[in-house]
Amino acid sequence: MSIKPLNNRVAVKFVEDKGEEKTKGGIVLPDTATKDEKPQQGEIVAVGQNIAPEGGEAEVAVGDTVVFDKYAGTKIEVDSEEYLILSMDDVLAVIN
Amino acid sequence: MSIKPLNNRVAVKFVEDKGEEKTKGGIVLPDTATKDEKPQQGEIVAVGQNIAPEGGEAEVAVGDTVVFDKYAGTKIEVDSEEYLILSMDDVLAVIN
Amino acid sequence: MSIKPLNNRVAVKFVEDKGEEKTKGGIVLPDTATKDEKPQQGEIVAVGQNIAPEGGEAEVAVGDTVVFDKYAGTKIEVDSEEYLILSMDDVLAVIN
Amino acid sequence: MSIKPLNNRVAVKFVEDKGEEKTKGGIVLPDTATKDEKPQQGEIVAVGQNIAPEGGEAEVAVGDTVVFDKYAGTKIEVDSEEYLILSMDDVLAVIN
Amino acid sequence: MSIKPLNNRVAVKFVEDKGEEKTKGGIVLPDTATKDEKPQQGEIVAVGQNIAPEGGEAEVAVGDTVVFDKYAGTKIEVDSEEYLILSMDDVLAVIN
Amino acid sequence: MSIKPLNNRVAVKFVEDKGEEKTKGGIVLPDTATKDEKPQQGEIVAVGQNIAPEGGEAEVAVGDTVVFDKYAGTKIEVDSEEYLILSMDDVLAVIN
Amino acid sequence: MSIKPLNNRVAVKFVEDKGEEKTKGGIVLPDTATKDEKPQQGEIVAVGQNIAPEGGEAEVAVGDTVVFDKYAGTKIEVDSEEYLILSMDDVLAVIN
Repeated sequence: MSIKPLNNRVAVKFVEDKGEEKTKGGIVLPDTATKDEKPQQGEIVAVGQNIAPEGGEAEVAVGDTVVFDKYAGTKIEVDSEEYLILSMDDVLAVIN
Repeated sequence: MSIKPLNNRVAVKFVEDKGEEKTKGGIVLPDTATKDEKPQQGEIVAVGQNIAPEGGEAEVAVGDTVVFDKYAGTKIEVDSEEYLILSMDDVLAVIN
Repeated sequence: MSIKPLNNRVAVKFVEDKGEEKTKGGIVLPDTATKDEKPQQGEIVAVGQNIAPEGGEAEVAVGDTVVFDKYAGTKIEVDSEEYLILSMDDVLAVIN
Repeated sequence: MSIKPLNNRVAVKFVEDKGEEKTKGGIVLPDTATKDEKPQQGEIVAVGQNIAPEGGEAEVAVGDTVVFDKYAGTKIEVDSEEYLILSMDDVLAVIN
Repeated sequence: MSIKPLNNRVAVKFVEDKGEEKTKGGIVLPDTATKDEKPQQGEIVAVGQNIAPEGGEAEVAVGDTVVFDKYAGTKIEVDSEEYLILSMDDVLAVIN
Repeated sequence: MSIKPLNNRVAVKFVEDKGEEKTKGGIVLPDTATKDEKPQQGEIVAVGQNIAPEGGEAEVAVGDTVVFDKYAGTKIEVDSEEYLILSMDDVLAVIN
Repeated sequence: MSIKPLNNRVAVKFVEDKGEEKTKGGIVLPDTATKDEKPQQGEIVAVGQNIAPEGGEAEVAVGDTVVFDKYAGTKIEVDSEEYLILSMDDVLAVIN
């Protein structure tokens, strides 16, 4: 099964960020305590047909790691895999 | 009787998603407990005349399975069948 | 007396929907209990001069049965007849 | 003294609607009980220079009876006469 | 000292409306009871460079008496004189 | 150190308005009681590149005294001097 | 690792403003008391492809010190370094 995001949207898979599993005080949190937090980073797995900004070129491609606002997008589940569908307006930056 | 959605709207029939009938803990829920939940997936049964996004081509067609936001659209009942009328702005992705 | 809706509006007469007078449990409700519910369907009795959507053709005509959102439009009374004045933006679909 | 509404506005005088002075139960209400209710109908007494909708022709003229939303417009008093200044966006229909 | 309103704004001086100093019951109110009420009428004392509406001609000039919404504009004080700076969008009508 | 406001913004220095230090009842307020009140007038000390309104010419220049809404703009501190950065949309009038 | 802000956004590193570590009363605050306050100034470390305002030229470049509203932008962490991703709409001025 494959996802085709529409218009100016991208589909993102959450990136496991091992370094975030410690609290500020250095305590390692078990999986159950953190797994409901939506991460701010993800890897693009599919892109829509209109992802270029007005007056510019497409700035992301499949495989890129992107940063987005904590509350942006809609989570969906396809074949037991979780994805985030994001408008490009909510993608802040690419990280290389 | 047939439905003709207007402008940039599509009519969607809810897809029965058998896999969702279990809770996270594995308990099988009877029909009555889940039937008021609006599913996030549906099959397109009719499309309006303006479904193509600005600066792009039509991205969906009758028969496609689409994903949409939980609270998008308006439920209507025609001949005892329930449909969701959705603006294409609220259709997030196509699943193949 | 006649109504001429302005700009992109239509005037709709509520369609009596006999099948709705039963509750889900099958109890037949007397008239007084349901008559304040605004129905979701109506018949177009007059149209304004700008009902075609941008980049498209007029999609409704006098006599069509249309579906609209429960809270859309403004109810008016002319010669003791009740009408709903609706912007075409709030008309979701035509039913044939 | 005369009123010249600006831009896309019209000035409306409230029409006395004798038939509305009865309650639904048929009781005739004295003047004092109804006079604070803003009526939904009025007669156009003056029009601004831009009353035609975008992509259309002017749809109202001085003398027309129009229907408008209960809470639209601003009431003003000139020479002890009360007028309603309405944007054409809030005029729903003409009644002949 | 002079005021030059910017863009589509006008400067208005409040017009003393003697007739408003009586209550509906005919009681004459002392100055202190009414002076905090912002009047709905004023005389234009200066106009900005862009007061004509889109697709139309300038509809007001210095010296005109205009009607505006009770809560529109910003009150300013220059040389102990009070003025209201109003966007033309908030000027409803001219009274002659 | 200098400030260069961006786009359609101006930088304003607050003007000390001696006459405002008295209350309406004529009581002179000590500095501490009034210094948190943001004045409505200021002198322009720098302008951005896009201060002209759409369809018009630049209406202010460095040195002009301008009036603005009490809650407009963002206060910043540079070299212990306080400035207000204002969008031209929030500048109401020039006072000469 | 590098950050590439998208569209009209810039990435900013917070500038340590030693002078702010004292309270108004002159008390020096320890690090822990102030470190959650988001500063209003920062240095641009990367820019997007569309940072020029409509009808103007790009007004900032990497290395510039900019002022922005206290609540603007989204904080992100890359390689244990904290950045603020800001739309150019929220950058108020450049300080030289």
